[in-house]
Amino acid sequence: MNLNTGDTAFMILCAALVFFMTPGLAFFYGGMVRRKNVCNTMMACAAIMGAAVVMWMLFGYSLSFGGDHGGIIGDFRWAFLNGVGMEAGPYADSIPHLVFCAFQMMFAIITPALITGSLVGRMKFKALFLFVVLWSVLVYYPMAHMVWGKGGFLAAMGSVDFAGGNVVHISSGISALTLAIILGRRRGYEFTTYRIHNIPFVMLGAGMLWFGWFGFNAGSALKADGLAAHAFMTSAVSAAAALLTWMLLDVIKNKKPTLVGASTGLVVGLVAITPGAGFVPLWSALIIGGLVSPICYFGVALIKKKLKIDDALDAFGCHGIGGIWGGIATGLFAQRSVNEAARWDGLFFGDYRLFLAQLAGIGITIAVAVAGTLICVAVIRIFTPLRVSVREEQIGMDISQHGESAYPSFNGLDQ
Amino acid sequence: MNLNTGDTAFMILCAALVFFMTPGLAFFYGGMVRRKNVCNTMMACAAIMGAAVVMWMLFGYSLSFGGDHGGIIGDFRWAFLNGVGMEAGPYADSIPHLVFCAFQMMFAIITPALITGSLVGRMKFKALFLFVVLWSVLVYYPMAHMVWGKGGFLAAMGSVDFAGGNVVHISSGISALTLAIILGRRRGYEFTTYRIHNIPFVMLGAGMLWFGWFGFNAGSALKADGLAAHAFMTSAVSAAAALLTWMLLDVIKNKKPTLVGASTGLVVGLVAITPGAGFVPLWSALIIGGLVSPICYFGVALIKKKLKIDDALDAFGCHGIGGIWGGIATGLFAQRSVNEAARWDGLFFGDYRLFLAQLAGIGITIAVAVAGTLICVAVIRIFTPLRVSVREEQIGMDISQHGESAYPSFNGLDQ
Amino acid sequence: MNLNTGDTAFMILCAALVFFMTPGLAFFYGGMVRRKNVCNTMMACAAIMGAAVVMWMLFGYSLSFGGDHGGIIGDFRWAFLNGVGMEAGPYADSIPHLVFCAFQMMFAIITPALITGSLVGRMKFKALFLFVVLWSVLVYYPMAHMVWGKGGFLAAMGSVDFAGGNVVHISSGISALTLAIILGRRRGYEFTTYRIHNIPFVMLGAGMLWFGWFGFNAGSALKADGLAAHAFMTSAVSAAAALLTWMLLDVIKNKKPTLVGASTGLVVGLVAITPGAGFVPLWSALIIGGLVSPICYFGVALIKKKLKIDDALDAFGCHGIGGIWGGIATGLFAQRSVNEAARWDGLFFGDYRLFLAQLAGIGITIAVAVAGTLICVAVIRIFTPLRVSVREEQIGMDISQHGESAYPSFNGLDQ
Repeated sequence: MNLNTGDTAFMILCAALVFFMTPGLAFFYGGMVRRKNVCNTMMACAAIMGAAVVMWMLFGYSLSFGGDHGGIIGDFRWAFLNGVGMEAGPYADSIPHLVFCAFQMMFAIITPALITGSLVGRMKFKALFLFVVLWSVLVYYPMAHMVWGKGGFLAAMGSVDFAGGNVVHISSGISALTLAIILGRRRGYEFTTYRIHNIPFVMLGAGMLWFGWFGFNAGSALKADGLAAHAFMTSAVSAAAALLTWMLLDVIKNKKPTLVGASTGLVVGLVAITPGAGFVPLWSALIIGGLVSPICYFGVALIKKKLKIDDALDAFGCHGIGGIWGGIATGLFAQRSVNEAARWDGLFFGDYRLFLAQLAGIGITIAVAVAGTLICVAVIRIFTPLRVSVREEQIGMDISQHGESAYPSFNGLDQ
Repeated sequence: MNLNTGDTAFMILCAALVFFMTPGLAFFYGGMVRRKNVCNTMMACAAIMGAAVVMWMLFGYSLSFGGDHGGIIGDFRWAFLNGVGMEAGPYADSIPHLVFCAFQMMFAIITPALITGSLVGRMKFKALFLFVVLWSVLVYYPMAHMVWGKGGFLAAMGSVDFAGGNVVHISSGISALTLAIILGRRRGYEFTTYRIHNIPFVMLGAGMLWFGWFGFNAGSALKADGLAAHAFMTSAVSAAAALLTWMLLDVIKNKKPTLVGASTGLVVGLVAITPGAGFVPLWSALIIGGLVSPICYFGVALIKKKLKIDDALDAFGCHGIGGIWGGIATGLFAQRSVNEAARWDGLFFGDYRLFLAQLAGIGITIAVAVAGTLICVAVIRIFTPLRVSVREEQIGMDISQHGESAYPSFNGLDQ
Repeated sequence: MNLNTGDTAFMILCAALVFFMTPGLAFFYGGMVRRKNVCNTMMACAAIMGAAVVMWMLFGYSLSFGGDHGGIIGDFRWAFLNGVGMEAGPYADSIPHLVFCAFQMMFAIITPALITGSLVGRMKFKALFLFVVLWSVLVYYPMAHMVWGKGGFLAAMGSVDFAGGNVVHISSGISALTLAIILGRRRGYEFTTYRIHNIPFVMLGAGMLWFGWFGFNAGSALKADGLAAHAFMTSAVSAAAALLTWMLLDVIKNKKPTLVGASTGLVVGLVAITPGAGFVPLWSALIIGGLVSPICYFGVALIKKKLKIDDALDAFGCHGIGGIWGGIATGLFAQRSVNEAARWDGLFFGDYRLFLAQLAGIGITIAVAVAGTLICVAVIRIFTPLRVSVREEQIGMDISQHGESAYPSFNGLDQ
């Protein structure tokens, strides 16, 4: 129960790194859209930075981590961060309470931001903004509480989630899919090849995400110790393996590896290792990462081409599918010799209980995300339609939603 | 007086984060200018990275923090960083002297770089370079000494400045205004709508600034402790609140929130919280950040539209006005229960003395900045005119000052 | 032999910073090429992130740091990172073994990535990929072992290399030169002025490199201590001095300082200080950095204009030449009073032995790099030609090697 400067230094800086993921996501997503939708795509991330932080301070942290109601949600004891101070505990005994709160806050920013990838090009900004506000309350805070909060029932069940497979990736991915279906496809979806406007931005975003993800996964140890190092290394190995297998898939399918493919691969590799980063042995990260790329690759094709769901930037295809695979893989590969916080070994080490708990955790997360999303949508529709008009979609979201365009004078008209 | 590895780790890495703000500023500013002035705008930041570091090593650190002359300036005892070594103290007793010096060095880079936002499009690069060199000596080192140096008279007066409201933001903002007036407007200012060339760059710059600002504000605790965590959290909350209120202002004025507005909002939110980050209670960060956006928004309109001063990228409008509000707000909201380094509570907690000290500190900073800028300009004019010719302004600063353009082969001519 | 949380926090985060250098390099290099070769240039960095990490885990770390064969190479004892765990040692006694391994892994990513700067615009991606894989085995792991591994013979000889002058910069620079010669010039080299496509990207890349380099050089102390702070400061001073002298050279040659020049200057300043960062006194960083710019400037002119070698982005001109100067300078300026890990003082402090050891170390590095590169090329040629066809070169590497272009819809065709 004594503050440790090394742990405190580590966790404050990890919080900063995790923060940096959201601007990174703005570029990862923003690079992938057409030029007429760049500001809108990036603005979604920016607006969430504002809304998620203020809500976290007002009531979000308290609902997620303060008290407990039935294992599902907290209470308002720490509203306005009242009582969240400079002393240690209660969630981490070597760092100030505020540091834990700040670290967790960054997760509450990036998670709703992930959803926005499936919505680009057609959702009213007002509806989007209301959605992420409501979704934070109805889905994110309960999920965080159930998995990481004191008394949370998913944790009590024995399901584990080191850095947010359920809480962050599955919840956002499933919600992205649900909302993309409700929203419907962009006009002309069947006839259009959506060409990216800026591949270097995609690479930059992926690089920022990987950089920040080290804070995300290693920081989830809540200490600067060997477990943090272990999570750091499994994360790097999984990202690298997935990058390589996505390159390989590109070569098999199109004879040529692509930069967009490599960038996507490293991101799904990081998604997949997130729940197990501090539970699975190092070598298994190679398998978890190596397999996530084909799983997502074919998942994306199924969603977009067969089911014709317009998950525009693959928010579900990457985070949903990758997160589910990661949760399952944790149930397969976890070893108590890596981290005793897991109650049982994984299926491949002879025990089926963790595996079942993981499946249950995933199932419950999916249910919460779908139900939460449906409720959010129903509420929002009282105030505003979800979609922009055909005309607005055609002229582009930047002009129609924000009155700005990404590169106003780039082409030299205002020289 | 014993070195602490956690504090040392924290402060070295915070120094790196603060460093990263200057490239961030280059993008924040560089994205906002027209395509013909991009290199020039970014080059100002780059050149300062070189000049500020070398000067800091030669004499800047010593003048700022070594010895004391009348509470105004140091001496040359640590010139060439002679005597600044690996042992602890004298400014922070748990980290090597060199770490304190390195952390402070990063502030000496970003501060003059901030000024350059008001000067874009018309100032000779040679004059600009001489200006920031001279300004560092005449304004920055004295300000740093007066506020943070041993014996500094602003500190002795009881004025507080946690991470550089006076030293960094007011000093640079006021100097930016002064210089913009002296320099005069860009040709055709009244008839021109200056259209940004790259909004994603503005967003990237704002993201890098926020990321680095965590190091700036939290690191100003000089330890990895609860106060650092407190400053981290007030910074995030203020940035987020200001981002939201700027969005709201955009909606009120133009019906649509903009990405440039959100990016500007978060930056002014960080400016405003800087002096009080480690003095004010958490909840007040919501007010400080929430109010800075309207204050700056109307301040900018006043400066640019009413007074017709060409503060091109709002260096004064954001850093000057935001910094002044932050200094005043610190006098209103500071609480000794947050940080006993404040001699008195703020006005809202029943004591007027800190409030008066803050006003005095702001007034003195303004006086120093104006006087210093005037002297700098007088000296520089001996060597070079300040402005480029009409012709050079028209063809653009990139070609006229640097012989390069930002995207030479982007349009495919050299494919 | 006890883990220290401060050191662990420091080293994990330094590893993350060093990781960030590779995306930074992708922008530094990617900004400098023509628009038709952007993806290919960036993809080289991305692919290496995948390959280098996976190889490091499989056998690279073990070959570099596990056991010893004749001072030249390790063995397979730590293959699959088996036995590399959460406990302290053997290379650093206050951090988990995995942290040391992770930190070193990041060096194994950036080093082969540096080579690719000389190859842009003409090398088949398949050949490039095979090259960096083989080169890691034949050059990087032996170099890392010889210099930093237990029993490594360059270290035994008394040659010192604080953060990778030999291991990283000379080895990659010399290999880049060798491969550029073998590969031949781009078509039309004599008649073409290669115009950069995106100078802001070059600046961004340089900023990310400098930021990450703080982790690279300071982290090479393996502890959060005064030596780390010393290396941090020498790095900053050298970068800044080189930035200024490169600006000066631009002014002397072309009357105007350029942003590309400033960016290049800061990078060579960082290269030059790398081997000596933790050995030389602070003031000498000013000289080492101040001189590296003219040395590289004229070196580049010699290579490209006189010898007409197409070292396209100056991988040799900057890293090779800068690294050699840095190694020599370490032999001149090293002081045992800075770091007792050096066996002798430098030449300027009265002892010639370190100087000779440095020359020997540089010579051996050059020999290993040249020989290794020749062997790699011979092996690769069994499987694939090195160069693309004339037609592919002309249409650009992005389309020919990856089937993508950097800004597919930027020009508005797909609006």
